[in-house]
Amino acid sequence: MSLSDKTAIAGIGCTEFSHNSGRSELRLTLEAVTAALDDAGLSPADVDGLCTFTFDNTAEIEVFANLGGRELKFFSRIDYGGGGACAPLQQAAMAIISGVAEVVVCYRGMNERSEYRFGAGGITPGTTAVRSWINFHTMHGLRTPAASMAVLMRRYMHEYGATEADFGQVAVSARRHAATNPAARFYEKPINLDDYMNSKMIAEPFRLFDCCQESDGAVAIVVVSAERARDLRKKPVLIRGAAQGACDHQRNMHPYYGRDITQSSESMLAARQLYQQAGLTPGDIDAAIIYDHFGPTVLLSLEAYGFCGRGEAKDFIRDGAIEVGGRLPVNTNGGQVGEAYIHGMNGIAEAVRQLRGEAVNQVQGARHVLATAGLSVPTSAVILGV
Amino acid sequence: MSLSDKTAIAGIGCTEFSHNSGRSELRLTLEAVTAALDDAGLSPADVDGLCTFTFDNTAEIEVFANLGGRELKFFSRIDYGGGGACAPLQQAAMAIISGVAEVVVCYRGMNERSEYRFGAGGITPGTTAVRSWINFHTMHGLRTPAASMAVLMRRYMHEYGATEADFGQVAVSARRHAATNPAARFYEKPINLDDYMNSKMIAEPFRLFDCCQESDGAVAIVVVSAERARDLRKKPVLIRGAAQGACDHQRNMHPYYGRDITQSSESMLAARQLYQQAGLTPGDIDAAIIYDHFGPTVLLSLEAYGFCGRGEAKDFIRDGAIEVGGRLPVNTNGGQVGEAYIHGMNGIAEAVRQLRGEAVNQVQGARHVLATAGLSVPTSAVILGV
Repeated sequence: MSLSDKTAIAGIGCTEFSHNSGRSELRLTLEAVTAALDDAGLSPADVDGLCTFTFDNTAEIEVFANLGGRELKFFSRIDYGGGGACAPLQQAAMAIISGVAEVVVCYRGMNERSEYRFGAGGITPGTTAVRSWINFHTMHGLRTPAASMAVLMRRYMHEYGATEADFGQVAVSARRHAATNPAARFYEKPINLDDYMNSKMIAEPFRLFDCCQESDGAVAIVVVSAERARDLRKKPVLIRGAAQGACDHQRNMHPYYGRDITQSSESMLAARQLYQQAGLTPGDIDAAIIYDHFGPTVLLSLEAYGFCGRGEAKDFIRDGAIEVGGRLPVNTNGGQVGEAYIHGMNGIAEAVRQLRGEAVNQVQGARHVLATAGLSVPTSAVILGV
Repeated sequence: MSLSDKTAIAGIGCTEFSHNSGRSELRLTLEAVTAALDDAGLSPADVDGLCTFTFDNTAEIEVFANLGGRELKFFSRIDYGGGGACAPLQQAAMAIISGVAEVVVCYRGMNERSEYRFGAGGITPGTTAVRSWINFHTMHGLRTPAASMAVLMRRYMHEYGATEADFGQVAVSARRHAATNPAARFYEKPINLDDYMNSKMIAEPFRLFDCCQESDGAVAIVVVSAERARDLRKKPVLIRGAAQGACDHQRNMHPYYGRDITQSSESMLAARQLYQQAGLTPGDIDAAIIYDHFGPTVLLSLEAYGFCGRGEAKDFIRDGAIEVGGRLPVNTNGGQVGEAYIHGMNGIAEAVRQLRGEAVNQVQGARHVLATAGLSVPTSAVILGV
């Protein structure tokens, strides 16, 4: 059995994205969930499932009680931060297919700029294997996610001849999309390649404009059966595929001891499952939301998800190929570099808007959109379609 | 669609249970997982899914890499501590039914006695709603789970006339089962009602012998499709039902503001789903593993899962009714009071042994066993069968 096409996204909801929301994460989450239910034409009493990230601070039962839910029959969490971005959709699909729940809301709400900052570095207490792994590398100078991921991209440059200017293409494209998206932090603030090359170096080869933002905000996504979605307010967006992936040598953020650090084995595993579930190939994908904690890693994902061969992404992205109008528009909302960083969930909302024909930077006739999650950690991805 | 009977438990594995394992939680977990795979006749390379508790310190990828796994296609976690005890089985069933994974291992490993202790009390840092909720009550003197749950049982005594001697029945029964279970902490150490009445008061009305242990150890459970299970080493134990439950006024550990604190609404919700999925009634259940963080709360569960009416559990348990040979043998391994406290997972292993006919305190001809999870938190439960 495949989970393909049995469930659909019926509603999406987002708060504004900011550097200081001025309200609690619970409040943000409730605003997003309420907006998503309104979008679907469903009420709080319809909700019987919730799924989020282990990193999320807002308990399912707090969301449920404050929302006005009645009976909660399903709740689960996915670990590994942004790597889990698409996995709540898979959870929702599985719960609905198995008859466990009927209306599952996936949510992520965070004051990641005003209350805490992921990129602050430092030693995290704890002696578990994963904590020790991270702390070991922190002590050796890889204090931040930017520093950790920079190692991969430096090697990628060496191996395949990718240049800073190539990486700049990703940033320029994202900012071009953000510039016409009123919800984006960098609305009306496009950059050109010169701006990029002059921007501050953060962790070589990552410049300021490569790094995702730190944001306050929340996003919620409502999933129901494909059948039920047809009777609701908005055009259903089918979950055509939903997969997770972690490889045999999987590490968390510091994958330096794998066989080849310039490829994302976990993404390749997710990709293989996705295309098989959906009966699609990379050539069928009309637009992609590629998780861009750091813009240059988009190149690794383009290769892992089969849009081009190993080391060829630098050529693939040239000449506006990943902008609206190009052969594979990527991060049409501006991505996490340009719109906001809500741990990948804002990208899923954008994928839904594209398939509904509601996006501010609309890809005409988009029928299949890929959304991915963080790499170099256990990952997840979905193909959505109409 | 119902998830009933589509998946089965093919293997179980446990370490020894102790107060000081002398090794890491990762090591304990690997021992249990390896034992469970051996029990099933499967190899590490067959495993493509893992599920555990958010409370578990051992990352899926550490288990997977050290086990020798190849491709990990599914990983998820359930929050709320012991309330989630049965939910990993539901996760496994959903993943297999949806075609996401084929061999899912549920695990829980902890040095909860030698490395840390849940019942130590004190303020936990953090400003989230759930943390604030717990800390608010801690500041007012409800420092430990025992103190929090004692409030419910005191009210229950007032409302229904249950006595300390009634609660003692639960403890005596559990210890009688533990006394003949070599894996149990209290092997060969039965107690009688006098011992119980003379045992130290911990948080009125809970005495020492009411409180679950603090234990080091690990348990793993292997789930595959019902079809595949038939070809494996051991007699398949079907997942006949698997449910979660949280009610509209659900609180975490301190449910004092609900409509009636003497009933477990979350358990009632799980029960309704379970019996519906399985097409069974309480009268069909041959034995039960009832989550006993505190023995007297077994009475609330017996009522919530429909074995007797409200307030009638004190009569139901009389005269050895919950011992082997009685009308509903409960916690035949000695429970968490008598065997060990591995967050409910050791009870699930016992349910499997009962259905295979491998239990040390065997219920003859057992065909359906209920296992429950912690109450007064979001909960979960399963009905297993042969």
